[in-house]
Amino acid sequence: MDRLTLHEDPRSGNCYKIRLTAALLGLPLERRQYDILRGDTRTKEFLQNVNADGRIPVLQIDDRFLPESNAACWYLAEGSTLVPTDRFERADMLRWMFFEQYNHEPNVATLRFWLLFVGEANLSSFQRDQIMVKRAGGEAALGMMNDHLSKRNWFVGERASLADIALYPYTHVCEAGGFRLRDYPAVCAWLNRVSGLKGYVPMN
Amino acid sequence: MDRLTLHEDPRSGNCYKIRLTAALLGLPLERRQYDILRGDTRTKEFLQNVNADGRIPVLQIDDRFLPESNAACWYLAEGSTLVPTDRFERADMLRWMFFEQYNHEPNVATLRFWLLFVGEANLSSFQRDQIMVKRAGGEAALGMMNDHLSKRNWFVGERASLADIALYPYTHVCEAGGFRLRDYPAVCAWLNRVSGLKGYVPMN
Repeated sequence: MDRLTLHEDPRSGNCYKIRLTAALLGLPLERRQYDILRGDTRTKEFLQNVNADGRIPVLQIDDRFLPESNAACWYLAEGSTLVPTDRFERADMLRWMFFEQYNHEPNVATLRFWLLFVGEANLSSFQRDQIMVKRAGGEAALGMMNDHLSKRNWFVGERASLADIALYPYTHVCEAGGFRLRDYPAVCAWLNRVSGLKGYVPMN
Repeated sequence: MDRLTLHEDPRSGNCYKIRLTAALLGLPLERRQYDILRGDTRTKEFLQNVNADGRIPVLQIDDRFLPESNAACWYLAEGSTLVPTDRFERADMLRWMFFEQYNHEPNVATLRFWLLFVGEANLSSFQRDQIMVKRAGGEAALGMMNDHLSKRNWFVGERASLADIALYPYTHVCEAGGFRLRDYPAVCAWLNRVSGLKGYVPMN
């Protein structure tokens, strides 16, 4: 594997996904930290050299740059035990990773960001108007995860895969966004299975 | 390949992605059609047998069901010329597919759905309040695509991949959501390259 550098804000669950994947696989990962609240990813240097989109995480592989957390996890894990060998299961793993970015992150992660880092008093009225819809969307996503996990230990197949890695970070800190983990017992049991994996590293 | 059935609403760009992938690969695909506006995907039968989430598309592979359009495209195309053989390019293709679901579809596709199918007069005030933000988000996504395509013919590598297939459907009908394709000349040229691919089928 080439030299790997993670451009990250350590408070971001999307960044943590990549760090967790690398840790579980025993891959060395250099870390370059930015403060997104201070605008570190909007500087001319960042936009020109790292990501024109101004977003993190970005996984740097030698001199090539890969945005999108789940794509970076895929790059690191392809061919490893974190990606199922069965064709259907591999696609089903991606299914949960797309679910994470479409149904879970925009609700569960955004409410954590707003309430924990921006602060409720500092939200715009536009943001405040969205809280209830994002609450309902996040609860639906957590409920769907709980239903799925009530019949199985891992999202896909018989062992941990990138589907679990992608869904773990924002789920395990969802209470900071006002969600109640105790409402999802199968999710709680699964969180413990993930944090018990060999090589696991915590978020902070 | 097993027997493939696409559970779809033909007006959905997410469904069309899967149909286009199958067509480009010459894979036979049975189609089962639903009217999402009439609630066809919220019936007890659909929720029990096809997708508990009540969403389409779902790709049925014999008796297994795969939601999420981009995961279904991956299932069909893995190992074909639509997926790059280079490890970085494969991950970079997924990067654009996650970009599509996170930055493009929730803005570009949602505005088309609201304005073309729901009708502006029927929108809730909550939806109406979001139009400007979704307009700006969609324009940012289209602008980023245009910048990228101004220096290359395809999103990844030297030929069409699933990144192009994922981004084509809602882009080529974005004017129904109030976007102006003429503002994005490199995108227009790319749309013509996609529709010129051997095996291409139109949306309707």
